[in-house]
Amino acid sequence: MPRINPTRLMDDLTQLRTFGACGTGVVRPSLSPVDIAARHWLRERMTDAGLEAHIDGVGNVLGRSRNPGQALLVGSHSDTQPRGGWLDGAMGVIYGLEIVRALAEDPATRDLAIDAVAWVDEESTYLGCLGSRSFCGTLSQADIDVATNSQGERLTDALVTAGLDGIPPTRLEPDRYVGYLEAHIEQGPHLEAAGNTIGVVTSIVGIRGCHITFHGQQNHAGTTPMPLRKDAGVALIDFAYKLQQAFQAIAGPQTVWTIGRVTFSPGAQSIIPGEAEMLLQYRDPEEARLDHLETAIHELAATANREGPVKVTVVQSRVPIAPTIMDAELQQHLAQAAERHAAGAWVHMPSAAGHDPMVLSAHLPCGMVFIPSINGISHDFAEDSHEADIVRGCQVLADAAASLLG
Amino acid sequence: MPRINPTRLMDDLTQLRTFGACGTGVVRPSLSPVDIAARHWLRERMTDAGLEAHIDGVGNVLGRSRNPGQALLVGSHSDTQPRGGWLDGAMGVIYGLEIVRALAEDPATRDLAIDAVAWVDEESTYLGCLGSRSFCGTLSQADIDVATNSQGERLTDALVTAGLDGIPPTRLEPDRYVGYLEAHIEQGPHLEAAGNTIGVVTSIVGIRGCHITFHGQQNHAGTTPMPLRKDAGVALIDFAYKLQQAFQAIAGPQTVWTIGRVTFSPGAQSIIPGEAEMLLQYRDPEEARLDHLETAIHELAATANREGPVKVTVVQSRVPIAPTIMDAELQQHLAQAAERHAAGAWVHMPSAAGHDPMVLSAHLPCGMVFIPSINGISHDFAEDSHEADIVRGCQVLADAAASLLG
Repeated sequence: MPRINPTRLMDDLTQLRTFGACGTGVVRPSLSPVDIAARHWLRERMTDAGLEAHIDGVGNVLGRSRNPGQALLVGSHSDTQPRGGWLDGAMGVIYGLEIVRALAEDPATRDLAIDAVAWVDEESTYLGCLGSRSFCGTLSQADIDVATNSQGERLTDALVTAGLDGIPPTRLEPDRYVGYLEAHIEQGPHLEAAGNTIGVVTSIVGIRGCHITFHGQQNHAGTTPMPLRKDAGVALIDFAYKLQQAFQAIAGPQTVWTIGRVTFSPGAQSIIPGEAEMLLQYRDPEEARLDHLETAIHELAATANREGPVKVTVVQSRVPIAPTIMDAELQQHLAQAAERHAAGAWVHMPSAAGHDPMVLSAHLPCGMVFIPSINGISHDFAEDSHEADIVRGCQVLADAAASLLG
Repeated sequence: MPRINPTRLMDDLTQLRTFGACGTGVVRPSLSPVDIAARHWLRERMTDAGLEAHIDGVGNVLGRSRNPGQALLVGSHSDTQPRGGWLDGAMGVIYGLEIVRALAEDPATRDLAIDAVAWVDEESTYLGCLGSRSFCGTLSQADIDVATNSQGERLTDALVTAGLDGIPPTRLEPDRYVGYLEAHIEQGPHLEAAGNTIGVVTSIVGIRGCHITFHGQQNHAGTTPMPLRKDAGVALIDFAYKLQQAFQAIAGPQTVWTIGRVTFSPGAQSIIPGEAEMLLQYRDPEEARLDHLETAIHELAATANREGPVKVTVVQSRVPIAPTIMDAELQQHLAQAAERHAAGAWVHMPSAAGHDPMVLSAHLPCGMVFIPSINGISHDFAEDSHEADIVRGCQVLADAAASLLG
């Protein structure tokens, strides 16, 4: 089996961290000048590793192996959250690069074809999973034309500024790949809490969301007696409390749900709220349980509407994301490699966060591994992992890549 | 007993309505040009009624009787809400004027001393109950200097624009008055619902309010398992639900409470709220019950803090207003007049809204009567009352004024 070079791996990770460094964190949103600078640096590293590397028309950095035969695609995204950590995305990108180099150095694997990739905008600065969606050909020009960031700046303008206008997007060649592998920090507490060092991902959770709106009657908070009120805020609180109980009864071990936002209108101390709204999101690895949770919401709304006096409406707040199942064969290769380097200290587990394989898995077999996040923290400057875990994760992915192509 | 002139009463009310008329409503905020024009018109009407009338340095219109002996002060405020009704305040002002005229026309009462008043800014455009507070001498110059409206315009500038700078405020002469009478629309549904036409006010409810803040821990809505969350929003919902139950158990027939505003921070769909806040206001005619309600809030907070994982703090959101008790003797005169003109169709009742007697009652005996509000609506362009009720209310107040001074 090939042996990765821990010093080279950590050096490159440390180097990538300098693009947008901000204290212990990194500010490198998609297509920002520092992100583009990082992509040019990544292209050079891929070229140095012997790949045919280029930046495509949306910003993906793709390094194509010169070896013959079917290839394995390995990588992640190199953009960050507005105030992100140094490993989210970046670690998986450098893993891809290091695996290309490690396999090339080993006579037993040097003829295997590994393509490396650094996707653009997984973090939704302009358009979530822009890079992988463009690669799979599932984006229309209209999707790209309307996309803006939170300051209202257009994606098309950002591509011009980045010098990418006129460059075609690179598309997936359907027969080239045996699959896609990505490594990532867990972004949760499970591995660390159980003393495990590798997670072989079984699926990525599905996500649904809805706005639940309560239509009451605005009135004077002093002179309107309690029995005559149609208080939208009271209706929301009652609904939200019962929702907690209903969801707890349905929840599986991986189910999570969050009321991220609540608003009462008009929002004044002496006025009974005439309207109130909550934004609910829920995630689960199983489609059937997501259906069950959604049914519970609609049953609670139907009951509230039957009992009155406030009217409840439920409207989808996002395009639902179906759970994504990781390929069984790729999982098997990853599990064998995990057992070799982390015997008894690895688990099969679902991913509670979204990743590019949600897009890619419709087009090619996907596999993912996780390494532990210290204190489960991510999307924060404090995000970190132990160096031993970072190194071990890369070796596990390199072994799996070699056995898959071998 | 004196007889009021219904045509003259309704004509003056209709005339006052034209100052700031906006559809069926009135827009006449304190010290606006149209409010000042109305105050000049009111001063002339008071002068025509035989009073020594003037506008004082904060905008109060005061009409002083030329008759000897102790006087009764009768009136209300003539400013409106930003989008107010035509009767709120205005009706009580024109009642005062009409009662002066009706008593002067009756040989049996023409020597009685009635002073009429139109207070300024009861509705808090700049400084709630500005007129009555200035009259009672409970405002400092500093209070006046810092007061602004919602556009940030200074009260002191508005007084200059109104031509009132340099004019002294008129103060209460402690020995002049036997008391103060004010009539008002009910602004609630009780009189209409019970088929009553007069309410003799027993007290004005006390008001307390607080901000209740929940300090949790912001985190990723996908990767943070339910048992490890410190979700400030969930804590708020749980608290608010239990508050409803606790308050229902303590509430008397007049207790009202309102959660007027709720905020979750940062308020995003994929982030567990790290902080949440609710604004609670509650009212009751009895100080003891207000104490009981406040204790319940602090007990709920103590329990929540003991159980965790989210920390709760309770902070006063306003200066508490103590319940105001109406003078027993004045209530008796009003009740006799009510029984004469609305036999079996009047009640003793508390006021659930605030009025200038909250200020005045610390300095002189106060009495109030209510007439029915159609559908209980006020602080809205749709505010209205039946003409028969408006006329009857004025006659009841006139009778009470005459018997009080007689």
